[in-house]
Amino acid sequence: MKLTRKDILGIKDLAVDEINLILETAESFIEVSTREIKKVPTLRGKTIINLFFEASTRTRTSFEIAAKRLSADTINISASTSSVVKGETLVDTARNLEAMNPDVIVIRHSAAGAPHMLAGMIKQSIINAGDGAHEHPSQALLDMMTIKEKKGRIAGIKVAIVGDIAHSRVARSNIYGLTKMGAKVIVAGPAMMLPRNIEQMGVTVYHQLKEAIKDVDIIMMLRIQLERQQQRIFPSLREYSNYFCLNRQNITLAKEDVLVMHPGPINRGIEIAPDIADGPYSVILDQVKNGVAVRMALLYLLTGGKS
Amino acid sequence: MKLTRKDILGIKDLAVDEINLILETAESFIEVSTREIKKVPTLRGKTIINLFFEASTRTRTSFEIAAKRLSADTINISASTSSVVKGETLVDTARNLEAMNPDVIVIRHSAAGAPHMLAGMIKQSIINAGDGAHEHPSQALLDMMTIKEKKGRIAGIKVAIVGDIAHSRVARSNIYGLTKMGAKVIVAGPAMMLPRNIEQMGVTVYHQLKEAIKDVDIIMMLRIQLERQQQRIFPSLREYSNYFCLNRQNITLAKEDVLVMHPGPINRGIEIAPDIADGPYSVILDQVKNGVAVRMALLYLLTGGKS
Amino acid sequence: MKLTRKDILGIKDLAVDEINLILETAESFIEVSTREIKKVPTLRGKTIINLFFEASTRTRTSFEIAAKRLSADTINISASTSSVVKGETLVDTARNLEAMNPDVIVIRHSAAGAPHMLAGMIKQSIINAGDGAHEHPSQALLDMMTIKEKKGRIAGIKVAIVGDIAHSRVARSNIYGLTKMGAKVIVAGPAMMLPRNIEQMGVTVYHQLKEAIKDVDIIMMLRIQLERQQQRIFPSLREYSNYFCLNRQNITLAKEDVLVMHPGPINRGIEIAPDIADGPYSVILDQVKNGVAVRMALLYLLTGGKS
Repeated sequence: MKLTRKDILGIKDLAVDEINLILETAESFIEVSTREIKKVPTLRGKTIINLFFEASTRTRTSFEIAAKRLSADTINISASTSSVVKGETLVDTARNLEAMNPDVIVIRHSAAGAPHMLAGMIKQSIINAGDGAHEHPSQALLDMMTIKEKKGRIAGIKVAIVGDIAHSRVARSNIYGLTKMGAKVIVAGPAMMLPRNIEQMGVTVYHQLKEAIKDVDIIMMLRIQLERQQQRIFPSLREYSNYFCLNRQNITLAKEDVLVMHPGPINRGIEIAPDIADGPYSVILDQVKNGVAVRMALLYLLTGGKS
Repeated sequence: MKLTRKDILGIKDLAVDEINLILETAESFIEVSTREIKKVPTLRGKTIINLFFEASTRTRTSFEIAAKRLSADTINISASTSSVVKGETLVDTARNLEAMNPDVIVIRHSAAGAPHMLAGMIKQSIINAGDGAHEHPSQALLDMMTIKEKKGRIAGIKVAIVGDIAHSRVARSNIYGLTKMGAKVIVAGPAMMLPRNIEQMGVTVYHQLKEAIKDVDIIMMLRIQLERQQQRIFPSLREYSNYFCLNRQNITLAKEDVLVMHPGPINRGIEIAPDIADGPYSVILDQVKNGVAVRMALLYLLTGGKS
Repeated sequence: MKLTRKDILGIKDLAVDEINLILETAESFIEVSTREIKKVPTLRGKTIINLFFEASTRTRTSFEIAAKRLSADTINISASTSSVVKGETLVDTARNLEAMNPDVIVIRHSAAGAPHMLAGMIKQSIINAGDGAHEHPSQALLDMMTIKEKKGRIAGIKVAIVGDIAHSRVARSNIYGLTKMGAKVIVAGPAMMLPRNIEQMGVTVYHQLKEAIKDVDIIMMLRIQLERQQQRIFPSLREYSNYFCLNRQNITLAKEDVLVMHPGPINRGIEIAPDIADGPYSVILDQVKNGVAVRMALLYLLTGGKS
């Protein structure tokens, strides 16, 4: 089976068959990263551009490692060193890159919809590596891959997503993906962090962590974006932490075999207690490992690979 | 035929035969970037260093893609992360790189003559990727390649270069190259943007856009460097734009099959109207495409390749 | 013979046999950088991450070139573009990288002991590329390699290390290494730049350059860190230079065949006169050349290579 779409812009657009194809392809790539020689010649002679307008270690590194393990050539462009400082528009930057004939452009941008705009204008494949508070599809795919790996399935799994739902592209992409795949999704956070009408996305809403995580299989904690604190979304970090930090007491409300996920970077002691982040329930580093495989799958499928 | 020189520092130094050799080699490399596997093993085991002391997306990316499509290893060094912050001199930086035995150092620097100084001191090949307001030879070569591609020849072609001629390394390199190759070159811009005695470079000077582009085959618009605006080279952007922005009205003064070029990044609505930049006359993205091929040719020829 | 340790954290930990193994392996790699095709397939499919929390040209570039000449894939992460700006801890950054399964992480950090902490936590090999004022083992190894190359041996050689000994990781690593290898080490600098009890490291201490360099085989000048000047470690640069700048007069006190070394970047005219840095005694660029070979040896040996 092949992926027929040109771009990966969000989970909202993906059909269940497409998600299954990506996850199965990713599963087959896990093994490459464990070999003595961690490299396959699949994408030799392909050019992958990482166009990052926001700082990122893990996502850029994950895409770059994924590309290199497939033998693709990678080019990194970060906003601070780019022509953006000369006032060029995003569209002109992208059209210029298009003219150099890359195969895939991976883009992260603070403006929601930026990757979609580019995808409609240029002929190469675009992967959205995070656009504002909109979508972060490769993150949701690696999260779904991790749930499937650990629980054997996604359908019927009960997942609580906790934190600043309103400003989280990770939450949004996961809500689209998990509900499509048949999981039951619960979201929780302080009132100011919950978008109006979020129920319409097919989720159950709670305002208390303790209610939300009751009997769930998966708890997905979101990162509190400390840089937003100046905007006073919540009274204080301490207060947030009192009510929403996952710790060894409140986690007992979840199922006994609950798994804890976090997209990183972690604020230890704010949204998650250190002993939970590093403890036996945590699959946070499995998420990272699976991230490389998911990105290999996306690059492979978008450049014409078959499962 | 082989290139016998060690460095590419400027178009001023190049003989017509050398320019022809570079353009013909570049034409033969165009095809590589259209292959399924966009890579040839020609420069395997060669090390190319991109040493950029000024921000750049397109030029650095173009050189990096060119090097990778030839299978060279590339190292990027940008001023902000380099020892320059520790106060090291340019010469010491270059000598240190020399000792690591790269094959080519591609350098962009705000000081005119910086690449020439290095070329005289170190044994590896230097390519000037832009030095102050002096020269930008790979840009002029890709411009000439584009003219030749679209018009079938350079000799006899009438080219108007419009904008801040005095501060443009693109203008200077193109004037050297186009006059050498037999084109007729016209320059135009406000008085403060025209260097004294520019006629001695073999060009015709006009102070009005409308005079300059009359019956020309090619209009090459230069980027207004907004960052210089504080120096008050011209009264206002609006005034500049009123007199020198290429738009659908004034372009009718040129030949019917006129082509519009721009080195990028474009200031839309300042030196060029959006519908002209994106319209049928524009070959701006052909320039970018040819840029990769020209840089492949330079890297190939400087490391001993034959046409 | 193989290296049995997982990490290279400092020279203090290394046995003489290990130092000899590294130097001999490095000597065998010198030839690779002089080939027409400067590349061997030894580390194909290995992933090397350069994780630099401090600005660096030469060390990062040297490791990157070393890795590429061994055919490894390299990933550069610099602090300014990393998740560190989002407040992630160093440990979480490293654990995330660990989960992407690289083979070696090369780390530079301003905090002494940072590489050691990581080495104890993650399963991949760590190379310390400079931690605070603590150690810089690859620098000391390339220095020892240069001494051995030029003098035929290290044992019995008389080496003066001059400058800000107290704040120099280069000095510390060299003191450990050179004394282990049987050299006689002298240190000199103004009183405020000499750590208390430095004699316990097995060195002789002088407060005058002229005393320190008398009859020595090697003078190793340290870089005065101008950025520390605000802390007023010494009254003025001019005064420092008057007493401690190596120049054509005072160098005559050393042996006739004395060699001058410097880890770079050089402050010309402050700790070393330009004619000495560029003169016949200087082996500064040999140090840089050997740096690539030493780093190839470290990457090779840590990933399981045998001499």
